[in-house]
Amino acid sequence: MPLPRQVFIAVIGAGGVGRCFLKQLHYLASHLCRDSSAPTYLSLILLSTSKKCLRNPDYRSLHLDTWEQDLAASSTAPLSPEELAEYLAHAPNKVVLVDNTSNQALADAYPLFLHKGISIVTPNKKAFSSNYDLWKSIFSAASNGNGHGGGYVFHESSVGAGLPVICTLKELVETGDEVRKIEGVFSGTMSFLFNSFMPVGGGGGPFSAEVKKAKELGYTEPDPRDDLNGLDVARKLTILARIAGLEVESPTSFPVQSLIPKELEGCKSGDEFLERLGEFDGKMEELKKQAAAEGKVVRFVGSVDVAKKEVKVGLEKFDASHPIAALKGSDNIISFYTKRYGDNPLIIQGAGAGGEVTAMGVTADLIKVLRLLH
Amino acid sequence: MPLPRQVFIAVIGAGGVGRCFLKQLHYLASHLCRDSSAPTYLSLILLSTSKKCLRNPDYRSLHLDTWEQDLAASSTAPLSPEELAEYLAHAPNKVVLVDNTSNQALADAYPLFLHKGISIVTPNKKAFSSNYDLWKSIFSAASNGNGHGGGYVFHESSVGAGLPVICTLKELVETGDEVRKIEGVFSGTMSFLFNSFMPVGGGGGPFSAEVKKAKELGYTEPDPRDDLNGLDVARKLTILARIAGLEVESPTSFPVQSLIPKELEGCKSGDEFLERLGEFDGKMEELKKQAAAEGKVVRFVGSVDVAKKEVKVGLEKFDASHPIAALKGSDNIISFYTKRYGDNPLIIQGAGAGGEVTAMGVTADLIKVLRLLH
Repeated sequence: MPLPRQVFIAVIGAGGVGRCFLKQLHYLASHLCRDSSAPTYLSLILLSTSKKCLRNPDYRSLHLDTWEQDLAASSTAPLSPEELAEYLAHAPNKVVLVDNTSNQALADAYPLFLHKGISIVTPNKKAFSSNYDLWKSIFSAASNGNGHGGGYVFHESSVGAGLPVICTLKELVETGDEVRKIEGVFSGTMSFLFNSFMPVGGGGGPFSAEVKKAKELGYTEPDPRDDLNGLDVARKLTILARIAGLEVESPTSFPVQSLIPKELEGCKSGDEFLERLGEFDGKMEELKKQAAAEGKVVRFVGSVDVAKKEVKVGLEKFDASHPIAALKGSDNIISFYTKRYGDNPLIIQGAGAGGEVTAMGVTADLIKVLRLLH
Repeated sequence: MPLPRQVFIAVIGAGGVGRCFLKQLHYLASHLCRDSSAPTYLSLILLSTSKKCLRNPDYRSLHLDTWEQDLAASSTAPLSPEELAEYLAHAPNKVVLVDNTSNQALADAYPLFLHKGISIVTPNKKAFSSNYDLWKSIFSAASNGNGHGGGYVFHESSVGAGLPVICTLKELVETGDEVRKIEGVFSGTMSFLFNSFMPVGGGGGPFSAEVKKAKELGYTEPDPRDDLNGLDVARKLTILARIAGLEVESPTSFPVQSLIPKELEGCKSGDEFLERLGEFDGKMEELKKQAAAEGKVVRFVGSVDVAKKEVKVGLEKFDASHPIAALKGSDNIISFYTKRYGDNPLIIQGAGAGGEVTAMGVTADLIKVLRLLH
């Protein structure tokens, strides 16, 4: 009969994903403690944003139902990554750090946390898609599968949000399949944009108008250039390529097509950029016409050709009958072409962005860590 | 620094899936023992078919490269499930039983193995889709996530072969999503049959001719009635419905449409059945015409409506633009409609049958167990 056990949780970030995660953590904690055969008590011991930090003396639990007011009332400044690692390392129970930010400095400190036996679950792409040295430091510090009882790292939501993309690719690799090519639409924003700009069967307005619409509907970053430059997709491809065995140096070490016209690279604000983007609608309209003449549609995709060691991100044309062309809304689609699966790839499709589904991937990773933390 | 450790593997079944699994086990074993930071030594201590058993005295390792000749040369009879449980329970290391059969008697003994701390990985649907009492016995005996260090059970390949179907559904449930509906094509045979009989865009021969072709190409069971009766799909739906929280009593406790005409239920052999099936081609042709008149195609699908507690299996019509209609070859497709994913479901698609991909799901489950067996 295993003894009841307590696991400490530290959460950084309380934005769109962070809020949803805290709600899911509340649900999970109330379910796990009711498991009569082996209850687990999850205890939130720290909650921090970039401006404020909430923690009790002696690692006492915070309240998951009043965190918002409590955080608002707090006047404590956040800890630096080093201070945070030190603080968590001295906790009397095992600790899981949940990084719901896209902070590079925190990502850079992952090896430090892992070396101290602190586990990490996160949707933060920065840690896994920056320079290759950081990737190596993280995974040599991590003890995934080695039975240390701590220092695990999972990042399912860094690609395709809650869709089972990373775990599936890892299983293909670990069971000895030969992954030949990974291809897909990896950005909810780009998916929505091109499904609207050039739907199968015709229609769609000028490109700049579609970008404005996407922004108004909340499908883009506050500054849409952060989507249109292709870097978000390049980061996801970097992660998948590395898991597939390619030593990709960084997300800028392979061809990435930016949809920001050269002439607009100097724009001082997102608003100025959006105002002037219409000047280039003719170019996009031409692309659309060319594709239509071939019975195809244009989509913004990424691919990893493992054998050729080629990673690329940009616009491509697809037959109207291709699954990538038929995508709806802001859905992602990821196809794995492998030796075992042959000509028909293993395909995963669905919402690849949004607070709830991203948080779901983080929560599922947390459950995996809890199972490993005996 | 964790110590090197040894885990014992016992494999039952050496047919299509069993053979592929043994090859993958060989690959895995040779990789795990080379992990310098925490080597794991996998040791095959027993290999059995329904006719013969191979094992050394004192649980000494069998040879993964010569198992075929060694098994052929063996004159030892297989153990009963009870004898097997007794034998494995006395092994000096932790044991994982890999059941690559579709044997009901072995499935019935799962609770016995689990109570003795033996873990199980398997594609055997019988254990999870027979009466509900067996399901309850298995999961109350299993210690998944409870930290006993043994007695885990995983069965990813019991639905959709190596596709990540069961793990995805479990994560949706465990993280608190509300699964509303599960729908899809769950049989490689039925997929191939209907994609050939009524492809999008027209074509396809008489139904009986397509069944004969599918049999010749190896897509059906030796007796095609075992596919056409719908029971295989009903078993898979039973498993998914139970994971989604429905207490489905058995695979015959909900409507399952059999494609075996009533008049042919008395056929004494598969050959007699196949000879006479042509008499009923007119009926299938009529269905096809009706669907075509509505711009639709006919597919053999299964669905679980969680809110209505309805499970059903049978023929349905789909728009030509529906993902289920566009399926190719013998691919499966499974759509999860949930609260978080909204109108656009989470979709998983790809080969859902075949030795290599089924074995892959078993091997991936074995890796999960090895991580939990600290």
